[in-house]
Amino acid sequence: MYLTQALKRAAQINGNELATQDNNRIRTWSESLERIGKLAGAMQKLGFKDNDRSAILSLNSDRYFEALYAAIWAGGIFVPINTRLAPPEIAFWLQDSESSILFVDKNFSEVIEELFQAGKIPSIKEIIYMSDDNCPANMQNYETILNENDKIDDTLRCYDDIAGLFYTGGTTGRSKGVMLSHTNLVSNSFNTITGLTIPNNARWIHAAPMFHIADVTGVIAITHIAGKHYFIPGFSPEAVLNGIQDYSITDTLLVPTMINMLVHHPDVTKYNLSSLRQLTYGASPMPESVIIKAMEVIPKCNFVHAYGMTECSPLLTMAGPDCHVFKGPKANLFKSTGVAAAGVEIKIIDENDNELPRGVVGEIAARGSNIMLGYWRQKELSDKALRNGWMHTGDGGYMNKNGYVYIVDRVKDMIISGGENIYSAEVENAIYQLDGVIECAVIGIPNKEWGEAVHAIVRKDSNNNINENDVITHSKNLIAGFKCPKSVSFRDDPMPLSGAGKILKRNLREPFWKGHEKQVS
Amino acid sequence: MYLTQALKRAAQINGNELATQDNNRIRTWSESLERIGKLAGAMQKLGFKDNDRSAILSLNSDRYFEALYAAIWAGGIFVPINTRLAPPEIAFWLQDSESSILFVDKNFSEVIEELFQAGKIPSIKEIIYMSDDNCPANMQNYETILNENDKIDDTLRCYDDIAGLFYTGGTTGRSKGVMLSHTNLVSNSFNTITGLTIPNNARWIHAAPMFHIADVTGVIAITHIAGKHYFIPGFSPEAVLNGIQDYSITDTLLVPTMINMLVHHPDVTKYNLSSLRQLTYGASPMPESVIIKAMEVIPKCNFVHAYGMTECSPLLTMAGPDCHVFKGPKANLFKSTGVAAAGVEIKIIDENDNELPRGVVGEIAARGSNIMLGYWRQKELSDKALRNGWMHTGDGGYMNKNGYVYIVDRVKDMIISGGENIYSAEVENAIYQLDGVIECAVIGIPNKEWGEAVHAIVRKDSNNNINENDVITHSKNLIAGFKCPKSVSFRDDPMPLSGAGKILKRNLREPFWKGHEKQVS
Repeated sequence: MYLTQALKRAAQINGNELATQDNNRIRTWSESLERIGKLAGAMQKLGFKDNDRSAILSLNSDRYFEALYAAIWAGGIFVPINTRLAPPEIAFWLQDSESSILFVDKNFSEVIEELFQAGKIPSIKEIIYMSDDNCPANMQNYETILNENDKIDDTLRCYDDIAGLFYTGGTTGRSKGVMLSHTNLVSNSFNTITGLTIPNNARWIHAAPMFHIADVTGVIAITHIAGKHYFIPGFSPEAVLNGIQDYSITDTLLVPTMINMLVHHPDVTKYNLSSLRQLTYGASPMPESVIIKAMEVIPKCNFVHAYGMTECSPLLTMAGPDCHVFKGPKANLFKSTGVAAAGVEIKIIDENDNELPRGVVGEIAARGSNIMLGYWRQKELSDKALRNGWMHTGDGGYMNKNGYVYIVDRVKDMIISGGENIYSAEVENAIYQLDGVIECAVIGIPNKEWGEAVHAIVRKDSNNNINENDVITHSKNLIAGFKCPKSVSFRDDPMPLSGAGKILKRNLREPFWKGHEKQVS
Repeated sequence: MYLTQALKRAAQINGNELATQDNNRIRTWSESLERIGKLAGAMQKLGFKDNDRSAILSLNSDRYFEALYAAIWAGGIFVPINTRLAPPEIAFWLQDSESSILFVDKNFSEVIEELFQAGKIPSIKEIIYMSDDNCPANMQNYETILNENDKIDDTLRCYDDIAGLFYTGGTTGRSKGVMLSHTNLVSNSFNTITGLTIPNNARWIHAAPMFHIADVTGVIAITHIAGKHYFIPGFSPEAVLNGIQDYSITDTLLVPTMINMLVHHPDVTKYNLSSLRQLTYGASPMPESVIIKAMEVIPKCNFVHAYGMTECSPLLTMAGPDCHVFKGPKANLFKSTGVAAAGVEIKIIDENDNELPRGVVGEIAARGSNIMLGYWRQKELSDKALRNGWMHTGDGGYMNKNGYVYIVDRVKDMIISGGENIYSAEVENAIYQLDGVIECAVIGIPNKEWGEAVHAIVRKDSNNNINENDVITHSKNLIAGFKCPKSVSFRDDPMPLSGAGKILKRNLREPFWKGHEKQVS
């Protein structure tokens, strides 16, 4: 069980078929295989050895695809770097992983040059420049080193060998490197193909960022079925609409915000989107109005809501096309995260790891060959996350009687007040229904009597005069008294967000807890 | 990665849905899970321990399904017994595997009773009677022991633990127990779901014998997608036609002979077969006339030709619906065995394990997580079959430039005459075209000058007067002279067949080679 096996099969059975297309640059599967083998040879010549790390900081491209597989072919581990990071964060990921090779495109070569010159990324021995324009002086030109080398034999790393090191966004602490093995990523690929019923002739557009595990799943799964990959540098509604039309895309994955922009694009009806068989989305809840519009605009397309996390390679649960209906027994089930994917075990547990009855909120736990090996060089954290053989997702949720999983909150964002568990998301949902609220975050703050008290932080419309009392009174009309905020503060700035766009509650909690005992991370 | 995970998931997400139907007996997934857990408890109470073997000798039924999973749940290994064996062969399989528990239905209880009384199956400690009529005195009643027990916890055997021990038919020697692990069978299941694009709502009829790995794949794959299982005791055209119609079957697997009987049934057009999405066949070549008729009778059904072997869990290659066409670039590709399945590596090698160029005949070799652990207690044979990390299938074949694999012959049935490799199947195909030939087998016999000489054994129509010279002359018109038989013998009896219906050439070779050096096995 190893990732490059799928590449070799694709070249064997679809050698003369298109494997990748990036603008006008087309490679067949035979060419892709040849180039990856050559690039791996070049990496070895540059000193890349077994188990070494090769980082990639680039927008989406066919070369991203090649660089990812070449790292494995050469015997090492790929480390995709989030393109939205600040320079110190980039340096942290590169140094924490001790990456020795870095692939970079023109969009990020300057920041890398600066980090490199400042001695902030000393582990990096070689930088490979992926773009077609002039290669900076102290970087290696991608095509030059590739073409100077013969294709080497696959090193055949497999099963429990680490294939990828994916850093998590870090909403709840510093970034951690998630070690995913060949078995993890191959298993997840088959789980995904099964769950999404990806056909053997699928054509996938890489529009979501390739540094994210969700699109890497597309890389691996489409290679598994020897399908066709199409790349655009990043998401824009026009690029995706053109891509679907021009490439007759059948399958892809987007986040709800992207789907929202796509289906509300003024020219959306001018595009021929009829090739689109299925659109999978995840990472954040799908507003009902957006899915209704999407189903209207692309009527023949299936929709799938998938839930997962990097530590699980990532797929955990999915709500398929049968859940995207508005009446009957499955009405609105797309609002759940769906049921356990084939190959994945899911249960809801209490703080002692006992399984909870259906309908009761607890922590979502998962087991399967898709669960990470652990966090890179963080044994204690790994043991804690994987205790008793189950991945503790940190997500609070419940399972209904038919096995559908609903996420309520991050477990770490749960407030314990007077012995009652209060899920901040529930309180936030209530407050959001008050006119004038633009953004809102609910946290627990220290309270002598109750341990924690519910506190709401609200950013309001500048034309609106709602005050603390309005927020509290409004909440009491919607949810139980003990869940309502005891205090409210207002802010003008947008909430602090993680790279993945999630509100960083630990930053909001910090000033309240200074000098108190509660773990803020 | 373990087989019972799929059962638990099916009960979690489709608890109230039909899992199995056998005549009027219907079980939901929750009931199935409960019963399997109870049956496993009963087995443990009867002394069944970790790694113990539990054999099953029965026609197809829902209880076959339960007994198979219960063996694993209880910590052991299931051993399906071919229902067409002679009593000494049954005894050999049971004793070679040292099975301690035997599940048997009414069709085989007498033969087992005799073997038991005669002391021929001393390893068997307990016999569990699966039928509903009166349970023989010294057997345990299936339902009674099941209902006397509470559901036990799954023993959670997984990954490289042996799950099933499948004895091979033995066309080329004595029966060998093929050890298939949890990883092997789970991997094969996902490879199959991917290759056959089995949908999440599939309804499968178990018409092919459940002792065969091909139908066990149906057991495992349909459980993986939490679909629906329907059982008939065994194949008859009427039973399958009624089953497809009554149960709205979407997917199943049959052998070409069965499909032939099905589509030529006089009443076939009276049945509603429109639910049938896909029919997979394998194990022997599909005559063109049969597939043409099948595509005419069930026009909306997809056809897939799959090739595999027990040692590979079994899927290796497949030719999908796109190959079932009669013109265009893919015309007649159904006559090949198709391309490597996702998750499986295939290459054609020479006697030194070097890969051969496309189009050149050699031995078909396979690699992947679906390849057996080895032969039960036969280390030397295992090492030989699995040398250099590849399964040596013993099948001779070639791969065309597009990756399609064509099987030419069993490597052991290849004749080496004057240094030339002659594939007996090619010679047989020529002889079969002569009027009056009912059955034919071509073997190599000792020859001082050439090492081996080509010899044909022919069973002819009793009204026909063809002689040795006719056969040789006819062959020379169709194939190269060195491939033509040098001698022909005629027989009146049908050829000796293995349990799987293959001609036992070693029996035919034996008299010719007595006193000579050639290994007859």
